[in-house]
Amino acid sequence: MLDVCLLGTGGMMPLPKRWLTSLITRYNGKSIMIDCGEGTQIALREAGWSPKPIDVMCITHFHADHISGLPGMLLTMGNAEKTSPLLMIGPKGLERVVNALRVVAPELPFEIEFHELSEAEERISFEGFHIDAFKVNHNVICYGYNIEVERQGKFDAAKAKELGIPLHCWNKLQHGEICEVAEGRFTPDMVMGAARKGIKVTYSTDTRPVSSIAKYGAGADLMILEGMYGEAEKYANAKAHKHMMMEEAARLAAEAQPKEMWLTHYSPAMPRPDEYMKDVKRIFENSVAARDGRNVTLLFEDE
Amino acid sequence: MLDVCLLGTGGMMPLPKRWLTSLITRYNGKSIMIDCGEGTQIALREAGWSPKPIDVMCITHFHADHISGLPGMLLTMGNAEKTSPLLMIGPKGLERVVNALRVVAPELPFEIEFHELSEAEERISFEGFHIDAFKVNHNVICYGYNIEVERQGKFDAAKAKELGIPLHCWNKLQHGEICEVAEGRFTPDMVMGAARKGIKVTYSTDTRPVSSIAKYGAGADLMILEGMYGEAEKYANAKAHKHMMMEEAARLAAEAQPKEMWLTHYSPAMPRPDEYMKDVKRIFENSVAARDGRNVTLLFEDE
Repeated sequence: MLDVCLLGTGGMMPLPKRWLTSLITRYNGKSIMIDCGEGTQIALREAGWSPKPIDVMCITHFHADHISGLPGMLLTMGNAEKTSPLLMIGPKGLERVVNALRVVAPELPFEIEFHELSEAEERISFEGFHIDAFKVNHNVICYGYNIEVERQGKFDAAKAKELGIPLHCWNKLQHGEICEVAEGRFTPDMVMGAARKGIKVTYSTDTRPVSSIAKYGAGADLMILEGMYGEAEKYANAKAHKHMMMEEAARLAAEAQPKEMWLTHYSPAMPRPDEYMKDVKRIFENSVAARDGRNVTLLFEDE
Repeated sequence: MLDVCLLGTGGMMPLPKRWLTSLITRYNGKSIMIDCGEGTQIALREAGWSPKPIDVMCITHFHADHISGLPGMLLTMGNAEKTSPLLMIGPKGLERVVNALRVVAPELPFEIEFHELSEAEERISFEGFHIDAFKVNHNVICYGYNIEVERQGKFDAAKAKELGIPLHCWNKLQHGEICEVAEGRFTPDMVMGAARKGIKVTYSTDTRPVSSIAKYGAGADLMILEGMYGEAEKYANAKAHKHMMMEEAARLAAEAQPKEMWLTHYSPAMPRPDEYMKDVKRIFENSVAARDGRNVTLLFEDE
């Protein structure tokens, strides 16, 4: 299972009662955060998540509302006694930007490793997760991210017995390792079924609608997409500043067919995003105007 | 009159329901802010103050909890259509630190002027205010600040008439200018009484108690001082990390005799600073364990 929490839903600037857009997910004791604007560490605390197990932090782009909370977050992770390294993933220039911001957070008890994205699509695998970064279309270089948890096939105990595989080999085979013993050489494919459907969350904000979003979101358990504006008269504005309308997000969801789509990154001038949901749901029924702290535990299919 | 609002009262890290310590004051349409940690722009909005008229920003020192909110605050000031320059005052290195943080806020519609403090005590005068910076004792270079509004003497209309000063000279003389006309040469000292008591606010946090604080706070209308810890057993900690105990702040206030003293910059581990106020008030009666958003309008003596 994968725990998911959308810590905030604001765009541009944090507001009283609306944190900036940031996502955190947790699987097997490891947390991945996407975006960290001003106040995200408070939102995290409010949501009851610990800053210590954050092992990966993905940044979509270098506008302040997506990264300005980083120095405080890093210090708070340090105060929580994090010592394991933090992997940071983001557009080219990431190390320069993070090091500039660290002028007020120079000393940390953990290392930061940088993965700067240089391709339009990249996959980074990390302890059972796959993180896919895909380029979107904003007025600066910006990426969307997929977080995917793979699930291996079922172990076929009856077959293992039938093949006379000794019991002390079973665990190895379940973990994808070959077991070579007096009885023979046993490989995982002998007893493991085909890989089963995993869990997939797609996150993309600060972009015009582009096909990569629908491609990566195809069949996702959850898509989280920018819904900067609801009012039709803001369309010119969205185009000019390369943001996404709520209905445009819905059309991407209609194409990708995730189980559910949450909207986020609302304009500070839009106090009640719910108002536009009737039209949004007409395009993609399972749409939600998410509020800060919205969370879900996504389960494997037969869990 | 001078409006004063203590936007937050937290130290180290912002918490749900406790913003980081920051002060804003307003006089004659001009605002001065001291310190700007993560979330200060939200606290400002919550308190109902505008970011646009902030003309001066003083930074006590370069720890993240006092300056990490700057990039977001600058962008929000820009979004509020501020175009007049911002004067920033802080320790040596200010321009370097601010420019590093501006990696995520490079474009602003207003200029930033830097005043880097190099002396132990400096006075900067600005449109009817005096800002006094005085060095305190933290583990990095740190300053306290006085904000003082001067008040000139009363205009003596009877005397002006007696001296035969023409009416069109009065306004000039009231504004400290000489008036030279056919009737003679008239100077302000002929009709203006002695300068009257102004308004003074003293702000100092992140320091061991030092004599400069009591010196600058002498007779202040309001002293705002660090009260990092209340529990006596935290004294070694306070000394080691160069912070101030609540009772130490009270002793400085007892020496300086301001009208009132507010405590701020509480440790995140101290949820209820009120608990220690009995002992604090025994040392200085007019002490308050301030909460976020505490505000007051300080009046001239006979206003």
